[in-house]
Amino acid sequence: MDLKTLFLDNPRRKKIYIEANNGIKIGFTEVELTSTFNADGTETPNQPVRLYDTTGAWSDVDFHFDPSKGLPRRREYYIDRVRNTEVVSVVEPTEKVPFQQRKVKRLKNGETQMYYARRGIITPEMVYVAYRENMAHANGVSGKMSADAPRNSLFIQHRGFKDSFSASQREITPEFVMKEVARGRAIIPANINHPELEPAIIGRNFLVKINTNIGNSSMASSISEEVEKMLWAIKWGSDTLMDLSTGADIHATREWIIRNCPTPVGTVPLYQALEKVGGVAEELNWDIYRDVLIEQAEQGVDYFTIHAGVLREFIPIAAKRMAGIASRGGSIMAKWCLAHNQENFLYTHWDEICEIMAAYDVSFSIGDGLRPGAIADANDEAQFGELKVQGDLCKRAWDFNVQVMCEGPGHVPLQMIGQNMQNQLDWCEEAPFYTLGPLVSDIGAGYDHITAAIGASVIGWGGTAMLCYVTPKEHLGLPDKDDVREGVVTFKLAAHAVDLAKGHPAAQYRDNAMSLARAEFRWVDQINLALDPERAAEFRRKNDKDFSIENATHHHCSMCGPKFCSMRVSKEIKEMFNK
Amino acid sequence: MDLKTLFLDNPRRKKIYIEANNGIKIGFTEVELTSTFNADGTETPNQPVRLYDTTGAWSDVDFHFDPSKGLPRRREYYIDRVRNTEVVSVVEPTEKVPFQQRKVKRLKNGETQMYYARRGIITPEMVYVAYRENMAHANGVSGKMSADAPRNSLFIQHRGFKDSFSASQREITPEFVMKEVARGRAIIPANINHPELEPAIIGRNFLVKINTNIGNSSMASSISEEVEKMLWAIKWGSDTLMDLSTGADIHATREWIIRNCPTPVGTVPLYQALEKVGGVAEELNWDIYRDVLIEQAEQGVDYFTIHAGVLREFIPIAAKRMAGIASRGGSIMAKWCLAHNQENFLYTHWDEICEIMAAYDVSFSIGDGLRPGAIADANDEAQFGELKVQGDLCKRAWDFNVQVMCEGPGHVPLQMIGQNMQNQLDWCEEAPFYTLGPLVSDIGAGYDHITAAIGASVIGWGGTAMLCYVTPKEHLGLPDKDDVREGVVTFKLAAHAVDLAKGHPAAQYRDNAMSLARAEFRWVDQINLALDPERAAEFRRKNDKDFSIENATHHHCSMCGPKFCSMRVSKEIKEMFNK
Repeated sequence: MDLKTLFLDNPRRKKIYIEANNGIKIGFTEVELTSTFNADGTETPNQPVRLYDTTGAWSDVDFHFDPSKGLPRRREYYIDRVRNTEVVSVVEPTEKVPFQQRKVKRLKNGETQMYYARRGIITPEMVYVAYRENMAHANGVSGKMSADAPRNSLFIQHRGFKDSFSASQREITPEFVMKEVARGRAIIPANINHPELEPAIIGRNFLVKINTNIGNSSMASSISEEVEKMLWAIKWGSDTLMDLSTGADIHATREWIIRNCPTPVGTVPLYQALEKVGGVAEELNWDIYRDVLIEQAEQGVDYFTIHAGVLREFIPIAAKRMAGIASRGGSIMAKWCLAHNQENFLYTHWDEICEIMAAYDVSFSIGDGLRPGAIADANDEAQFGELKVQGDLCKRAWDFNVQVMCEGPGHVPLQMIGQNMQNQLDWCEEAPFYTLGPLVSDIGAGYDHITAAIGASVIGWGGTAMLCYVTPKEHLGLPDKDDVREGVVTFKLAAHAVDLAKGHPAAQYRDNAMSLARAEFRWVDQINLALDPERAAEFRRKNDKDFSIENATHHHCSMCGPKFCSMRVSKEIKEMFNK
Repeated sequence: MDLKTLFLDNPRRKKIYIEANNGIKIGFTEVELTSTFNADGTETPNQPVRLYDTTGAWSDVDFHFDPSKGLPRRREYYIDRVRNTEVVSVVEPTEKVPFQQRKVKRLKNGETQMYYARRGIITPEMVYVAYRENMAHANGVSGKMSADAPRNSLFIQHRGFKDSFSASQREITPEFVMKEVARGRAIIPANINHPELEPAIIGRNFLVKINTNIGNSSMASSISEEVEKMLWAIKWGSDTLMDLSTGADIHATREWIIRNCPTPVGTVPLYQALEKVGGVAEELNWDIYRDVLIEQAEQGVDYFTIHAGVLREFIPIAAKRMAGIASRGGSIMAKWCLAHNQENFLYTHWDEICEIMAAYDVSFSIGDGLRPGAIADANDEAQFGELKVQGDLCKRAWDFNVQVMCEGPGHVPLQMIGQNMQNQLDWCEEAPFYTLGPLVSDIGAGYDHITAAIGASVIGWGGTAMLCYVTPKEHLGLPDKDDVREGVVTFKLAAHAVDLAKGHPAAQYRDNAMSLARAEFRWVDQINLALDPERAAEFRRKNDKDFSIENATHHHCSMCGPKFCSMRVSKEIKEMFNK
């Protein structure tokens, strides 16, 4: 795979860095725009548009583009300077995992991001995410595309966007980030053993994030394929990545991913634990699971999905459902509970799990093992019973200063989505909600990225902080890299629609730039401001063979023909009024 | 193109006809299911599932599959028997439009569907649509997939679903159809000169419908390509079709489409009128426009989009927008108004237009020429000013017993969608709303079918009766047949999600059948119950090379491998409880 071409394919989209007041550099994508051609023959240059960027050093022109060398460990300097760590071991390069030597660290006293936030201390990660979020600020804001008064991005009173901005205070400051983390309403998943990470914040008063699931199974896929999927995910804007591998080489696959991934990485440690007992759920036990937790925490996993809310009492209810237990982790733990006639060991060992999480600043993603797998099963007693337990577990984790988000459904029809958000806010103390879709119907096979994006938009608008992508292959097969791209872009779209609806200060700036480009026939800009410029350019070329992203402005378009072009007629009308 | 293969490709999905109590036959797709394999080794057969069908005779096994011969004129018998018509001319076959001789008819006294409904008379079309809508009834409802008590399809109190059903009255009766048409809350667009039509009803107390736009431009496409797009549209479930052709052969293209299209066909007559004046908007006039209306009404067009609400006073407001006037019809009429310094001639001639519509039972689709073309322009004074005028025009059309739906936006962010629906219900007396999306962001180029499906789901849930599809090529080029398929399936998905949310009696039956098939590893059934079985089968084959829609049940799946299959573990748990 030619990774240099993958990341440096567009001369009008460049990586830039902006320096924060503490010296930290934050990367953005800068889209260079073409000029506006005025009616009087003059040209007016347009300011470049800066976009949130998830590609890390992979989009640096001078990067090595070699996954066997991994990303630069830019965060290490700050970890070593400000965190209270001890080195527990040293990982040397091997043939299979050839990355440079790495010191595995622990926090001496569990000083997580939440620990500092609660003491009013702003960490480098908090500064980083504040600058990163505040794109309207990064765009400088001048001229006609001003974000100062975008007519529709008023800061509405909305449950999803509480206590955050006022119309007069349009900046996301490091102080605001700190307060949200302290409150538990946002998390910065950032394991101290993931120095390659560019921190991101997940919480409903920030840009909505999307997660990409990848991972091999015993049936298919290799390490290089998974690394490639990860790179495709970040290229198209994925904010976090879950490695759900269950097959061979589970440890090595994860090492390759973490060392090359600039976004937070999550896992479901239960999968590796199950591999260790030969796939027999009944043979799982706490000791094996704990060892896996520590192994993965020392590798640098930033958040763990843990299905501790699947209590024994809920299993008979879930067994009666149309689709039973649709979550892998949920079904495995249910089987264990039934076999042993004991309570879920993840629940009974919760405090010990919290201690491990705190030692590396790993965040919880409390699993929803009983999420509905069919419309008919939505919002039932098993699902909401587990959600209440997720809320209790959340509060217990906060006692250890461990950051928490809660996972949500699943298959839920439109009219039942609101209740999910409401209950989660009420029962989980506003900890970030992280949902899989929800899918608003069961019959979309082949198009379930869309079924899920519809539900995701609705629940995101209600306040969900992160949307787990779904690919067109959902229910049918494992996604390949093309499916990853399709899923990521679809969910970026849903997330952006929610950012617009919630009035995030950075959101509408880009839509306005796009609409002006459209009205002014600046085709190159329309392509480069789109979520997937490659796809847009490919489609454009079907109607205009000569189109290239280097082209100058076209004053007419080959779609409807000049007589039926509303944009052309509209431009004439505009010019009549501007005379 | 091999049309026989296109429509008869799936041996487990067959066309059946159900006879109504008045002898009319209504077509459905019947999906034959495989048997359930029980834990004790026995098999339980599953009832076939009957689906709403939009393919007309094209899916009859003994059809001629020759577009030059057109569809059988099954509706002609009822028109001739019950309608009060006179023959105005006879169209003979020519080389270019070789269809069998056709008598052009007029209604003597403007006796439209609404005319009859208001007098308490049930027409054959009303019977047809009642049976067609009432799929839960057509499914017979027995056994475990009973639609009698689907847990989540309760008839919720919802603005979108008023005065319609109660939990105890689950049938859509011909009487109910009649009342909704009389009230103006639903329309049956059915020109008496379109005898090939299978009537469909559009109104918010019925299944949500989707519209497909096709049509050539002066730049691209041929008649056979447009016919093929139409056939692809109905194959994947499009409920109505708009022919937006603007290029050469506009009359012949339309003739080929109408004679072969079993769904209602709509047009924007302004496009043909503009062609007649060489594309110069200023040269349009009422006489030319009127002649086009009559020409198209006599061809059998079922509904006309007419941009009569674009009043002079709104144009200066729209000219100041970011994206100006994004509608073709709107920009053309605005230009005309400015050039002549006169009020829109479609507005001033409204009564005469109504008389023409009533003479053929053509329905109005009152255009929204000032719909926003950018997020920044949503819900502005120009848009809502026009919507109020649409409401006035609607009431005036009802005075002539002409059926009406109103068109809606456009580009609207999530949080502003609700106000559109609210205003339309308030100002247009609950006449069916028919929206283009809305698109919830401007930056989705290449994925705008999804941007639009998100908005369509939200506004559909609010009560919009018909959703105009958007294809992935929106803003970039003209759709080809693959784009038509992608757009149609995406919008069927959105429409179905809304039917589920509103609790239509026929909706959840199919989801339940799908979910049971999923839980029982009936892969063949999962494929055949999906909205696009071909796509689902294609994706499935990527993970399971031996998969075919003829295969027997697979007890395991090649996706996650047997150890990590939640459905397998869940099935084991279910069986433990059922022992």
